[in-house]
Amino acid sequence: MKKEIKIGIIGTKFMGKAHTHAFVDAPLFFDLPLKPVLQVACGVDPKATEQFANRYGWKAWDTSSEKVILRDDVDLIDICTPNHLHMPVAIAAAKAGKHILCEKPMANNADDARRMLDAVEEAGVKHMMVFNYRRVPALAFAKKMIEDGKIGRIFHFNAVYFQDWLVDPQFPYTWRHNKQLAGSGAHGDLNAHIIDLARFLVGEFETVCGAEKTFIKERTIAGTNQTKEVTVDDAVSFMAHFQNGALGSFTATRFATGRKNLQRIEIFGSEGSLSFNLERLNELEYYNRNDAAGEQGFRTILVTEANHPYLNGWWPTGHIIGWEHTFVHLVSDFVTAIAKDTPVYPNFYDGLKCQFVLDAVASSIEKGRWIQIPER
Amino acid sequence: MKKEIKIGIIGTKFMGKAHTHAFVDAPLFFDLPLKPVLQVACGVDPKATEQFANRYGWKAWDTSSEKVILRDDVDLIDICTPNHLHMPVAIAAAKAGKHILCEKPMANNADDARRMLDAVEEAGVKHMMVFNYRRVPALAFAKKMIEDGKIGRIFHFNAVYFQDWLVDPQFPYTWRHNKQLAGSGAHGDLNAHIIDLARFLVGEFETVCGAEKTFIKERTIAGTNQTKEVTVDDAVSFMAHFQNGALGSFTATRFATGRKNLQRIEIFGSEGSLSFNLERLNELEYYNRNDAAGEQGFRTILVTEANHPYLNGWWPTGHIIGWEHTFVHLVSDFVTAIAKDTPVYPNFYDGLKCQFVLDAVASSIEKGRWIQIPER
Amino acid sequence: MKKEIKIGIIGTKFMGKAHTHAFVDAPLFFDLPLKPVLQVACGVDPKATEQFANRYGWKAWDTSSEKVILRDDVDLIDICTPNHLHMPVAIAAAKAGKHILCEKPMANNADDARRMLDAVEEAGVKHMMVFNYRRVPALAFAKKMIEDGKIGRIFHFNAVYFQDWLVDPQFPYTWRHNKQLAGSGAHGDLNAHIIDLARFLVGEFETVCGAEKTFIKERTIAGTNQTKEVTVDDAVSFMAHFQNGALGSFTATRFATGRKNLQRIEIFGSEGSLSFNLERLNELEYYNRNDAAGEQGFRTILVTEANHPYLNGWWPTGHIIGWEHTFVHLVSDFVTAIAKDTPVYPNFYDGLKCQFVLDAVASSIEKGRWIQIPER
Amino acid sequence: MKKEIKIGIIGTKFMGKAHTHAFVDAPLFFDLPLKPVLQVACGVDPKATEQFANRYGWKAWDTSSEKVILRDDVDLIDICTPNHLHMPVAIAAAKAGKHILCEKPMANNADDARRMLDAVEEAGVKHMMVFNYRRVPALAFAKKMIEDGKIGRIFHFNAVYFQDWLVDPQFPYTWRHNKQLAGSGAHGDLNAHIIDLARFLVGEFETVCGAEKTFIKERTIAGTNQTKEVTVDDAVSFMAHFQNGALGSFTATRFATGRKNLQRIEIFGSEGSLSFNLERLNELEYYNRNDAAGEQGFRTILVTEANHPYLNGWWPTGHIIGWEHTFVHLVSDFVTAIAKDTPVYPNFYDGLKCQFVLDAVASSIEKGRWIQIPER
Repeated sequence: MKKEIKIGIIGTKFMGKAHTHAFVDAPLFFDLPLKPVLQVACGVDPKATEQFANRYGWKAWDTSSEKVILRDDVDLIDICTPNHLHMPVAIAAAKAGKHILCEKPMANNADDARRMLDAVEEAGVKHMMVFNYRRVPALAFAKKMIEDGKIGRIFHFNAVYFQDWLVDPQFPYTWRHNKQLAGSGAHGDLNAHIIDLARFLVGEFETVCGAEKTFIKERTIAGTNQTKEVTVDDAVSFMAHFQNGALGSFTATRFATGRKNLQRIEIFGSEGSLSFNLERLNELEYYNRNDAAGEQGFRTILVTEANHPYLNGWWPTGHIIGWEHTFVHLVSDFVTAIAKDTPVYPNFYDGLKCQFVLDAVASSIEKGRWIQIPER
Repeated sequence: MKKEIKIGIIGTKFMGKAHTHAFVDAPLFFDLPLKPVLQVACGVDPKATEQFANRYGWKAWDTSSEKVILRDDVDLIDICTPNHLHMPVAIAAAKAGKHILCEKPMANNADDARRMLDAVEEAGVKHMMVFNYRRVPALAFAKKMIEDGKIGRIFHFNAVYFQDWLVDPQFPYTWRHNKQLAGSGAHGDLNAHIIDLARFLVGEFETVCGAEKTFIKERTIAGTNQTKEVTVDDAVSFMAHFQNGALGSFTATRFATGRKNLQRIEIFGSEGSLSFNLERLNELEYYNRNDAAGEQGFRTILVTEANHPYLNGWWPTGHIIGWEHTFVHLVSDFVTAIAKDTPVYPNFYDGLKCQFVLDAVASSIEKGRWIQIPER
Repeated sequence: MKKEIKIGIIGTKFMGKAHTHAFVDAPLFFDLPLKPVLQVACGVDPKATEQFANRYGWKAWDTSSEKVILRDDVDLIDICTPNHLHMPVAIAAAKAGKHILCEKPMANNADDARRMLDAVEEAGVKHMMVFNYRRVPALAFAKKMIEDGKIGRIFHFNAVYFQDWLVDPQFPYTWRHNKQLAGSGAHGDLNAHIIDLARFLVGEFETVCGAEKTFIKERTIAGTNQTKEVTVDDAVSFMAHFQNGALGSFTATRFATGRKNLQRIEIFGSEGSLSFNLERLNELEYYNRNDAAGEQGFRTILVTEANHPYLNGWWPTGHIIGWEHTFVHLVSDFVTAIAKDTPVYPNFYDGLKCQFVLDAVASSIEKGRWIQIPER
Repeated sequence: MKKEIKIGIIGTKFMGKAHTHAFVDAPLFFDLPLKPVLQVACGVDPKATEQFANRYGWKAWDTSSEKVILRDDVDLIDICTPNHLHMPVAIAAAKAGKHILCEKPMANNADDARRMLDAVEEAGVKHMMVFNYRRVPALAFAKKMIEDGKIGRIFHFNAVYFQDWLVDPQFPYTWRHNKQLAGSGAHGDLNAHIIDLARFLVGEFETVCGAEKTFIKERTIAGTNQTKEVTVDDAVSFMAHFQNGALGSFTATRFATGRKNLQRIEIFGSEGSLSFNLERLNELEYYNRNDAAGEQGFRTILVTEANHPYLNGWWPTGHIIGWEHTFVHLVSDFVTAIAKDTPVYPNFYDGLKCQFVLDAVASSIEKGRWIQIPER
C-alpha cells in the first residue's frame, strides 16, 4: 500500500477547484511515490465550504485555517486564498512544519514575500509557487531547448498577457479594483506569470521601466447606484534589460478586447527562435536558423509526443491536453520532490524574485524612470 | 447521499484509461444525478488487469467478461474491447439488463451491428456509442448553430482525418494490419468518426463511392525476420451524396506525414460556413454571410465561454480544455440519461447507420461504382 | 538596342488586362532577351477595344482576330478569348507561324485540344498554356523540393479550389451557366488548375471517379423576370489514382461560402509533406520527417528569399508579391524560351493531358464508375 | 490626349526601382488625371545611372541633382536618396517650385525636417512622405473602420516591426552601422513606419520612453580583417501615452531571428479590435464586440473586395496583391492630388511629427526618463 500525503487546502474558489482536480488526477496519469489524500478543505463560509468538500471529495472541512494548519493529519498546506492572506497562512504553515504550495502572486509586496521565504527556509519545509505555466509541456520543452543551446544567445523576450473581461463598463466594482485589497490589477495577476516565465526561460532581470493605465476610472457597486474609484491598473506595459543582455517587452491588460486568455511569448536568439500562445498551448513555434537555406521557417511543433515533457503520462501523439493539466504536472512534481527530498521549482525564492520585478515596475511608474532589481 | 451507478468496464487499454478518467472527473465538473462507482475492471491478462484496477481505482477486477456482466453490483457495462468482441459482449450485457456504453466502430460489419441494436431495444436498456467527438464543445456548438439556421442549406461537407503513425516502414506488423481481426484499417478507425459527425451535422447519407490504398504492402513481425502481408487499407477516400442534397468528400489516412491527429471538417452553407480542426479543438471557425459588406471573414470562436456547450462545467473563458474532456461530457450525459430515463445520442441506431456507410464504402471500392445506403 | 517580340492579344477582359500587365512588368524585373511590344489588341466591340488599347498602351487595335493573326508585325498570339474560341484562333495562329500563349482550359474537349496540339507541332511554333500557378514561387519551389527528393514517395495529393461567387441566388444567369458555351462550370474553370498542378507536382493520372452538383438549378436573366436552367456544375469532386501509386482527392466549387479564392494543396510523402494555400501564396508549409525527434512540425517558409524561384527579380526578403506576378514569371519564361529556342512548360501537350482528365471525370460522373486516362 | 506630369527621380537603388515601377503601373490600374512620364533619373555613378535609366525606361539621366531639379521638363522630384540628403534636395526642389515625394525617414533630425516643411509651405508645392503602409488596403480599411466608430475608444496600440538580417555576425560593416551617416539603426528605418501608422490610426503621441540595444558591437569591413564599432541601435523598444489616452508599445529590431518583414499591429478598442501582419498584408483581423454572444471571435477579412480601398483597381475578389502595390496606390493619390490641387497625406507635416517621436525616443533613452512630444 502506497504511503499517503495528506492535503489541507485553504481557499475554495477557482483555484481551490483547480488544485483539487490536480490532486485527484495526478495519480491516474503519473507514478507518484505518495498517494495524495484530500484531507481537509478550509473556507470562510461554513455552508459553501461544506458543499465544496462534498462536491470535490474532501474528507473534512473547516473554517479556521489556524486549526487546519495545526492538524496532525495534514502534511501539506495548499494556499489558494486571496493574495493578502498568503503571508500569514504560509508563515503559520511553515512554523507548523508543513510543506507549502502557494498561489501567485506570492504576496502584496516584496517585504511580505521575503518574510515567507525566511520562514520556509528556517522551517526546512518544501515550498513551491503555483506559477503553473512553467509546466505547460510546450514551455517546459522550450526551456529544454534553450538549455540545450538550440536558441543560442537570447536577444529578445517579448511577452503579452491579454484578457478582456473589464472592457464592459457595466462590469461592477469588486475588491479586485481596490489597491489595498488586491495590491494591483492586471500587473500582479498577469504580469506575475510572464515575469516568472521570463526568469525561467531567459534569466534574471537587471532594470525595468513601466507604464500603466486605468481606462475606466470608476465602476458601479453591484446592485446599487453608487460608483467607486478604481485604484488599480487596468493595464501595465514595461520594458526590461536582462542580466544576460537580452531586451524585454511586456504588456498585461484586461482591456484587450477579444482576447480571452492570450499569453504570447516570443523569444529571438542567435541560433533560433520560439513563439508560444497560451490559447494554443499544445503548440510551440520554433525557427531553426541552421535549417537548410530556402527551407527555413517557423515550424509548429505539436507538443504531444511521448518524448515531450509530461506527455508520456497522457494520450497518444496528437491528442491535445488543456489548461488544467499544468496543475496536474505541478502537484505531481511537488509530491515527488517531497517524497524524494529533492529541490523543486519555482519555489518561494522564485516567488520573491518575481515580486521584486513587480515592485520595481510599480516604482518605475511612480518615479517615471528605470529601476534596478535587487538581488535578495 | 447520492444514488450510485456501478460500472463494469471490459477492456483496459487506451480506451479503458480514457473512460476510467471520465468517470472519475465527471462528478467533479458536472452535476450528475447518480454517482459513478468504479466497480469492476475486466481484462484478459490477470496481472495487467489487477495493476490497471489498482492504478485507476477500480474496486475489483476479473478476467471473465461473462461474470462481470452478470454481477448484481454492476449497472452499466462499458465496452472498450477490440472491435470484434463488441457484439458478443453487448448482446450478453443487454440480456443481463445492463446499460451499455460501446466504443466505435460498433462492429466489424452491419449484420453484427444490427444484432446488437436488436438486443438493446429488446432488453430496453440504455445504449450509447462512444463517438466522443460529438461532445467536443466546438462541434456541439456547430450543431446548435446549424439547428438554429445559422448555416442555412448545407452545400458541402468535407472531412479529413489525418494521422501518420504508419509512414515508418519499420513499424511492425500487428493485428491491426490483419483484415480478419481488425475489419479494416484507417477506414473503420478514422472514417467511423467523421461519418458519425457527418450524420450529426448534415444528416443521412444517400450514396457513396470510395477508393483505398495500402501503401506498404508487407511489414515485419516484431522481433523476427518474417514479413506478413498487410490486408487492410492504409487510407480510404470517398465521396458522398447526402439525402438533403449536400455533397461530401472524406479522406482517412495513416500516411499523412506530419499530421498527428488532424481531423478537419469544413461545412459550407447558404447562410454561413464552419470549419473545425481537432488539433485546435477549442476553436470553431465561422463565416457569417450576413455580416456587413467588406467586414466578412472567417472568425475564430474560442469555444470556452460559459454559454458554450459543456463549458459552464469547466474554467473561466479562455482556459482551454483537452481531448479527454469529450469523454467526461459523454459519460455525464449518459449517466444523466440513465437517471432521468431520457433518450441519449449517439446510440446503437447511430452506430448501425455509421456501419452501413462504412460497409457501403468498402463495397463501392470492391465494385468500382456508387453504392446506396440502406435505411435499416 | 534589344530585339523586340511583338504581341497580338486576342481578348480584352480580365485575362487581357492580366496578360498586358505581365508584358509591361516583365522587362522591369527580369532580364529578357527580347523586348515585348504591345503591338495590337483584338476585341469584339470596337469602342471597348479601342479604350482597352489606349488604357493599357497597345499600339493598335482591331476587331478581326484573323487580320491580327496574319499581320507581319505580330510574332506572338496571346489567346484570352472565351474557351470555345481557343481552338480556331490557335490553329489559325499556328498556320500563320506565330508563337502561341493560350489561356486555360485549353478547349471544350480533348478532341479540340488534340487538334490544337497537332497544329502547333506541325507548325513548329512555341506554345504555352497559361496554367499560371506553376509559377507561384512557392509552388515552383515545391516542385524543386520534390525533384530533390525532399518529399520522397508521394502518398497523397489533396487539392481543393474553393470560391463562393455563386452562393447568392440572385446572381444572374450568364453564358457561364450554359454548358454549350462554357463546357462546364467549376470543373473546367477551377479543376483545370489543380489537375495541372497535380501533373506538375505528382505525375500522370491513371484513373478518376467524380461527383457533381448543381445547387441552384435555375437563375434569372439579368434585367428580366425570366429564369433559365443552369446546365453546368456548381461543384465537382473527384478521386484519382496516379500512375506512381499516389491517391488523389479533388474538389472545385463555386459554393464554398466565405472562401474567395482558396486553392489548398496538401502533399504527403515518405520523407516529408507540403501544404499550400493560394490566398497566402507567399507561404509554403513544409514538414521534414527527418528533423530531430520532438522538434518536428510543419514550418512556414516565407518564399521571398533571393534563392527562391523568381524572387531574385523582385524585392528584399519578406516583401511579399501578389497573384498577378505569376503572369509576369510566365511571360518572362515564354519570351526567353522563344528567344533561346528552348522547351517551355506547360505547353499544349500539358493542356491536352489536363483536358483528358477533365473529360474523364465528366465521363465518370455520367457513367457512375471509374474511368482510365488515355495516353494521347 | 492626357496631360502629363514629368518625374525626376533622385536615387536609383531599392526605392528608385520601387517608385519607378509604381509610376509605370499606376495608370494601368487607376484612372489618373495626369499621365506620369519617366523624364529623368539621377544617380551618383554615371554608368549605373545610365543602366538604371535604360532598364526601367527613363528618358534621360544625369548625375547632378541640382541640374535635374532645375530642368523645365520636370514637374515632380521624387527623393529616394540616403536619408541625410533628403533635406538639401527637398529644399532645392521646393525653391524650384517642384512637387516633392520624399522617402522616409524625413531627415536625420527634427530641425532638418522642420526646415523642409517650412520650405515646401513657403513654395506652395505639393509634398508627400512615402509612408507607404498607409496605403496597404487592409490598413486603409482599418482607418475607415476606426473613423466609422467600429473600434470605439482605443485602449491599446501595440506594434512591432521585426526583421533579422543582422543576426549573422558575419554580416559586414556598412554605412548603415554608422550613426553619423544613418542617424540610427532599426529605429529610423522601422520605427518610423509604425510611428506613422500609430498617428494615422490612433492620433498624436503625448509622451514616450524607450530602450535600445546594440547586440553586436563591432563588425568586419567587407574584404578586410578590420572591424569597426557599430554606433547605431540594433533594436529599439518604446512605450507611449497618446493624447487620447491610449497606451502604446513599440519594438523595432533587426535581430528577430526568423522574422523577415513582420510588422504586426494590434489595436484594442471599446467596440472592437484589429490586428494586422505585413507578411499577410491582404488580411485584416477584426473582432466585433457586438457580435452575437457565443459567436464572437477575430475574423480574418481578406481585403480583396471591390469595396475595399484601392481594390477596385486590381483583380477579382480573393486575388491577392503584394508589397509594391502600396507604392502604386501612393503615387496614384499624389498625382491625383496634384492635378486636382487637393490635400494629400502623409505630407511633410506628418514627416516632421514622426521625426519628433523618433527624436523623443532617442532622447528618452539617453536620459533614462519619459519625454514629451512637441507640438511643432
